[in-house]
Amino acid sequence: MADTTIHICVTCRAAEDPLEAEQGRAGARLHKAVADLAAARGAPVRVVGVECLSVCKRPCTVGFAAPGKWTYVYGDFPAETGADTILAGALLYAEAGDGLIPWKQRPDALKKGVVARTPPLAPASSPVPPLAEAAE
Amino acid sequence: MADTTIHICVTCRAAEDPLEAEQGRAGARLHKAVADLAAARGAPVRVVGVECLSVCKRPCTVGFAAPGKWTYVYGDFPAETGADTILAGALLYAEAGDGLIPWKQRPDALKKGVVARTPPLAPASSPVPPLAEAAE
Repeated sequence: MADTTIHICVTCRAAEDPLEAEQGRAGARLHKAVADLAAARGAPVRVVGVECLSVCKRPCTVGFAAPGKWTYVYGDFPAETGADTILAGALLYAEAGDGLIPWKQRPDALKKGVVARTPPLAPASSPVPPLAEAAE
Repeated sequence: MADTTIHICVTCRAAEDPLEAEQGRAGARLHKAVADLAAARGAPVRVVGVECLSVCKRPCTVGFAAPGKWTYVYGDFPAETGADTILAGALLYAEAGDGLIPWKQRPDALKKGVVARTPPLAPASSPVPPLAEAAE
């Protein structure tokens, strides 16, 4: 499970945020909240700040990634209250061998907030990987 | 350059597509068009069909990915005319060491169609990768 990374866009800006002062932006606040929560709970995840996930219309944006798994990007997280849901979702992602959290287990914020997903890269020796199950 | 993969959502559906008959959906048609074009030109890319990139509101959706690079997801490609732009964009992506195509070189469809991007996974020994340049 320790290979799960939570990417958090630190440049995501809430409507009331000033254009300058990126350290105070919603994304930066969310990044700190998730990192603090993960540390306090000893969660086996890495929390990594990223300068722009290119989902600027749906702040705050985060992603889950791990070697060999599908990568997911989610938006619409509130900076002040999103950390719990994000960490819980990342732990479910960590438990899912391919990164696909079973639909019934997914928090509503992950069902509604999905922005995109991409499959793991196939080994170079495999020209066409098998199609995976459709997203739900 | 041969490690560049173009992911194409084969379940993307245009407004006029029937709900059934996935083989005839816009995404499947685009997948065939890009694969045929890449083969005809001997382009050093892999064209991989994917069942759902979870961007259902912006068909057709594609992604560029390669080991160690940023992964990009783009939407809004027309099935019948998108192949040329997608292949040209993928070749620019292949030439970009980190996957970031210089802004001035980006086709308009990639500027307007970006859905999300995610950074390459940092090595396990590096707890916090440096922040990369913000998307433009």
